[in-house]
Amino acid sequence: MIVVMKKGATSQEIGEVIRRVEQAGYEAHLSQGVERTIIGIIGDGRPLSGDNISLWPGVERALPILKPFKLASRDFHPQDTVVPINGVKIGGQEIVVMAGPCAVESREQIHETAQALKTSGVKILRGGAFKPRTSPYDFQGLGKEGLRLLRQVKEEFDLLVVTEVMSPGDIELVAQYGDILQIGARNMQNFSLLHAVGETRYPILLKRGMSSTIEELLMAAEYILSRGNQRVILCERGIRTFENYTRNTFDISAIPALKSLTHLPVVADPSHATGRWELVAAVARAAVAAGADGLLIEVHPHPEEALSDGAQSLTPERFACLMEELRRVAKAVGRSLSGKGTDAT
Amino acid sequence: MIVVMKKGATSQEIGEVIRRVEQAGYEAHLSQGVERTIIGIIGDGRPLSGDNISLWPGVERALPILKPFKLASRDFHPQDTVVPINGVKIGGQEIVVMAGPCAVESREQIHETAQALKTSGVKILRGGAFKPRTSPYDFQGLGKEGLRLLRQVKEEFDLLVVTEVMSPGDIELVAQYGDILQIGARNMQNFSLLHAVGETRYPILLKRGMSSTIEELLMAAEYILSRGNQRVILCERGIRTFENYTRNTFDISAIPALKSLTHLPVVADPSHATGRWELVAAVARAAVAAGADGLLIEVHPHPEEALSDGAQSLTPERFACLMEELRRVAKAVGRSLSGKGTDAT
Amino acid sequence: MIVVMKKGATSQEIGEVIRRVEQAGYEAHLSQGVERTIIGIIGDGRPLSGDNISLWPGVERALPILKPFKLASRDFHPQDTVVPINGVKIGGQEIVVMAGPCAVESREQIHETAQALKTSGVKILRGGAFKPRTSPYDFQGLGKEGLRLLRQVKEEFDLLVVTEVMSPGDIELVAQYGDILQIGARNMQNFSLLHAVGETRYPILLKRGMSSTIEELLMAAEYILSRGNQRVILCERGIRTFENYTRNTFDISAIPALKSLTHLPVVADPSHATGRWELVAAVARAAVAAGADGLLIEVHPHPEEALSDGAQSLTPERFACLMEELRRVAKAVGRSLSGKGTDAT
Amino acid sequence: MIVVMKKGATSQEIGEVIRRVEQAGYEAHLSQGVERTIIGIIGDGRPLSGDNISLWPGVERALPILKPFKLASRDFHPQDTVVPINGVKIGGQEIVVMAGPCAVESREQIHETAQALKTSGVKILRGGAFKPRTSPYDFQGLGKEGLRLLRQVKEEFDLLVVTEVMSPGDIELVAQYGDILQIGARNMQNFSLLHAVGETRYPILLKRGMSSTIEELLMAAEYILSRGNQRVILCERGIRTFENYTRNTFDISAIPALKSLTHLPVVADPSHATGRWELVAAVARAAVAAGADGLLIEVHPHPEEALSDGAQSLTPERFACLMEELRRVAKAVGRSLSGKGTDAT
Repeated sequence: MIVVMKKGATSQEIGEVIRRVEQAGYEAHLSQGVERTIIGIIGDGRPLSGDNISLWPGVERALPILKPFKLASRDFHPQDTVVPINGVKIGGQEIVVMAGPCAVESREQIHETAQALKTSGVKILRGGAFKPRTSPYDFQGLGKEGLRLLRQVKEEFDLLVVTEVMSPGDIELVAQYGDILQIGARNMQNFSLLHAVGETRYPILLKRGMSSTIEELLMAAEYILSRGNQRVILCERGIRTFENYTRNTFDISAIPALKSLTHLPVVADPSHATGRWELVAAVARAAVAAGADGLLIEVHPHPEEALSDGAQSLTPERFACLMEELRRVAKAVGRSLSGKGTDAT
Repeated sequence: MIVVMKKGATSQEIGEVIRRVEQAGYEAHLSQGVERTIIGIIGDGRPLSGDNISLWPGVERALPILKPFKLASRDFHPQDTVVPINGVKIGGQEIVVMAGPCAVESREQIHETAQALKTSGVKILRGGAFKPRTSPYDFQGLGKEGLRLLRQVKEEFDLLVVTEVMSPGDIELVAQYGDILQIGARNMQNFSLLHAVGETRYPILLKRGMSSTIEELLMAAEYILSRGNQRVILCERGIRTFENYTRNTFDISAIPALKSLTHLPVVADPSHATGRWELVAAVARAAVAAGADGLLIEVHPHPEEALSDGAQSLTPERFACLMEELRRVAKAVGRSLSGKGTDAT
Repeated sequence: MIVVMKKGATSQEIGEVIRRVEQAGYEAHLSQGVERTIIGIIGDGRPLSGDNISLWPGVERALPILKPFKLASRDFHPQDTVVPINGVKIGGQEIVVMAGPCAVESREQIHETAQALKTSGVKILRGGAFKPRTSPYDFQGLGKEGLRLLRQVKEEFDLLVVTEVMSPGDIELVAQYGDILQIGARNMQNFSLLHAVGETRYPILLKRGMSSTIEELLMAAEYILSRGNQRVILCERGIRTFENYTRNTFDISAIPALKSLTHLPVVADPSHATGRWELVAAVARAAVAAGADGLLIEVHPHPEEALSDGAQSLTPERFACLMEELRRVAKAVGRSLSGKGTDAT
Repeated sequence: MIVVMKKGATSQEIGEVIRRVEQAGYEAHLSQGVERTIIGIIGDGRPLSGDNISLWPGVERALPILKPFKLASRDFHPQDTVVPINGVKIGGQEIVVMAGPCAVESREQIHETAQALKTSGVKILRGGAFKPRTSPYDFQGLGKEGLRLLRQVKEEFDLLVVTEVMSPGDIELVAQYGDILQIGARNMQNFSLLHAVGETRYPILLKRGMSSTIEELLMAAEYILSRGNQRVILCERGIRTFENYTRNTFDISAIPALKSLTHLPVVADPSHATGRWELVAAVARAAVAAGADGLLIEVHPHPEEALSDGAQSLTPERFACLMEELRRVAKAVGRSLSGKGTDAT
């Protein structure tokens, strides 16, 4: 922590800051500049809040020096974390595509989708049973019935399943059916939920909140890691900005930024980012080119009949084309795409 | 819903849109313009999603015409809703100030605060027992012990209490101690929690999410109202923008905008909005001048020792001055401030 | 400037930073912490760029300590600057309302407006002759003819005029007709224009850019002040955010923030901020309650026929009511409203 | 235009809207819904402003149907525009990389850079002589001397030059030295400047304003196109958001969005977007993968001594590596990189 004194701070005020810092068990280093006096706080004493210090007499502001996240930081864990999930590895050389509908709607819909995805080489099926929706009048998901349908196709097609959990009380239920628990963007700072999944050892796909900074995403991961669950996968899915042509603004820079700040795997969701199916392929290719470890893509056999997010869903045919494009881009950046067909390229 | 066809849409595509609209039980009104054909959808059939229609062949976009909220809308409930809470009314002629520390920290702290606030004429004490914090290493609140301390001072000083609930499982516990349940900004779209408080009849203070639009705030209120709980108070507390001099950007226009769109009471939280105690008084006066029905203000007897949000907390002395300023502004806009001393002005 | 070294920076890297800092004519103060080494840079040597230092080996980042503005800063000029303009003072005890149409459209329009405003006690007429418009197909203002019409009513009704200048080449022309030159939000960082008006001694109304921070607004003012023109009035007019119910988001906190950071007068434009006439009065009252030194309000005798910004214009009748409301709020915060009728309150 | 009447609008109000619409020379199509009446306005009469119509009695809002840009729209010009500039084509199959320092600083600096870039196969040199800087105390560019240095290396190395023009009065001067005139982000809505370059026939590189929407960028292009200059190249360079880890947020979706909305070439500037050299390569690869027609990349032989933007500049060595990466990604998306070495891949 660096304490910047106000222009004209008195020597008494400066002395008092030093006294308080030392009283809290720290060393204080004084630097008297031409216009400002600066005091560095050094050591491992009782926690000091910059917020509070900024209120001490004569203090202008207090600047934190250390990053607030530790367990998520690459500084303390230089090598990449790879999350293995029943044979699929997220965070390694292979880029993993997770695809499927926004919501499970019916046996036919999820079966048709799973079959098509399997053919395209997908190993992880996405699909929501519990859906957070802006309006109480919109389709809220099939709930437990949706989970059962997911398990049926999971078993039939030998797929893994990623699905959302919205409430601490549902974790065990969802974990019975799914392989990866998704924390949605709206729940990224639902700390009760973060604590609860941190107590489990299930793989967690943590989506960035729509107005969360990169640092806040890492702090949310820190909640889970600090409870002992190390199997955290981060997901960039677009942030809210003034631009409204797209549903959100996909923060492509967050991918290399996160890869340098943390050891955790980073995947991208171009479907929610753009909200428009015709932009999904370009953003998916971009995410792979920028270093993403995986993708989350919405696919629906009949987007115009989807009960949610139809406008951002690819048909299975368009998705199959995209997979071929992604294979080429992955290869261009020295990686490969998980799934059958990999050898062929 | 209005369907705008693409430039050059064929008559077959137009015919097909009309057919589908009628099949869903609606009437279709055709308007053939110079550059675009437009089709109005009229009636009460099976719900149609604009998202999906935008995917029909030849369609450029589908524009919704109606506001998505009903129960919260002033269109359907023209008169102001007043929420009575054990003798205090929120949403009426009197402006209600809720004040207190960010978090309950100790018996001494909450007692000293409550005593000072009572002297200033405050009737509702705020204070968190469960605290949502960005970092898992920060003070998370005293939990149930905090609730007990709140009840002690509530009884001793005859105050009402507003305090946060973070999880559906805690609602009944929190309601045993508090009079108003606060849903924090980070939980505004925690739909499990909204549903759960909607099933109760406790007064709910719903804070606007830091990146939520006015419409989304009203949709979150709609979740609660649609479950039968009509005692909802909305709170503007600043939104996230590029400006970082303040903690958030207080959206002053949201106050008159909400007052015109909804019948629900609207209060303001200048402390979280600004994050700087020296700006709180100006923004509090502004909120009253703009028509707020109440204020939520952080007061701490020793801000520089606060375990959270010290930088935005007023001392009891500064708060007492602010109360006098607010009385004058309230009077200037034809209202009064709740609490003793009102007669004197 | 504070230099934060990377975790694990070598003593050679630290030594090299010190060497370079001293070579540039500064003193280097070393603070070796538990996890990080910090080096304070002190003195008045050749300018050092934090941007560059952050690239030196072993450096994590370089934090500036001083505010980048000087002439605009209250630190160096504690007392309020009052800008006198032909008998009207902006920045003093009296709050000054500048009102009029977005654009001068015709002799009748500007005459009718001026007459009504005069009756309401307004002393400064606003009106654009050169209009920056998003679309090249929209009305671009009457240009020189508009300036002539402004001068006619200015003389007839003894008003001062504030009008926009968009290009360095137009400054002298506009100054022949207007008393205050407005730099619009889109030109806040048109540095050629800032330099050019800085060379004059005309009063300048500098509007905050729609995505400019408070600090950038002060830096833009610094451009003008550094060329010798001290007559600068700042204007908060709303910033661009994700909220689209209003045209912009009025940053009410910027008013007290600017008043504490700078000695320059600060006025507010609730018309452009909201874009909706029905919200203008509430935001105008709020701005006065928050400490604004003046207001810029759009008034049009027939808003529904306005060639620009009709939706945010008040009719003269509504404006007259607002003036009465503003008088009461001004009085509540210990100030008065400029213009006739002041005595009466 | 679609006019949505208020709930409960009277038949008299509806009749009056129809009368006014017809009086302006349009047809009015009435659709009476269950909750709202809607009136479609059809035809080519005197321009009607939706802003004004929204003020007519009984009207709730007026929704525009047509996009406001015409000349820039792909609807009216389906094939791609290719801008040929002395033998280099922007907007065709080849992706064009423009590289060089933020600012021309000295003969040595620009010479060393040009030599290195030439070796990497670059055909267009970027470099500013007039620099828009946030602070008046920062380096403002060498002005005319900078232009002369650019021409020297341009001739010596047979490069084209792109350089910024900040003021209408400088256009002819800058065009004597540069091949492409850049309009910077801060000037995207400097309409005087847009008009002035629209009157010339020089190629214009138009950068997106930091808080401008995609539509506003296209409207700015429309200003230039409407004056007859068809040689416009658009540039995505990041927008301003709440995320401050990066200098701006690169809007990757804007690339495919622009490519679908307009026929103009679209290039990307990952240097200004990220503000951090270590993120530039990832974002540059992403832009190519997303369909950009070119890139603008800052390269400086000694970034840590740069007079501006050192932190976002690549060294020539890093740039040479990036060029190889870009060649591979370009090939993966079916394109090639302009410049020597293309054949080799």
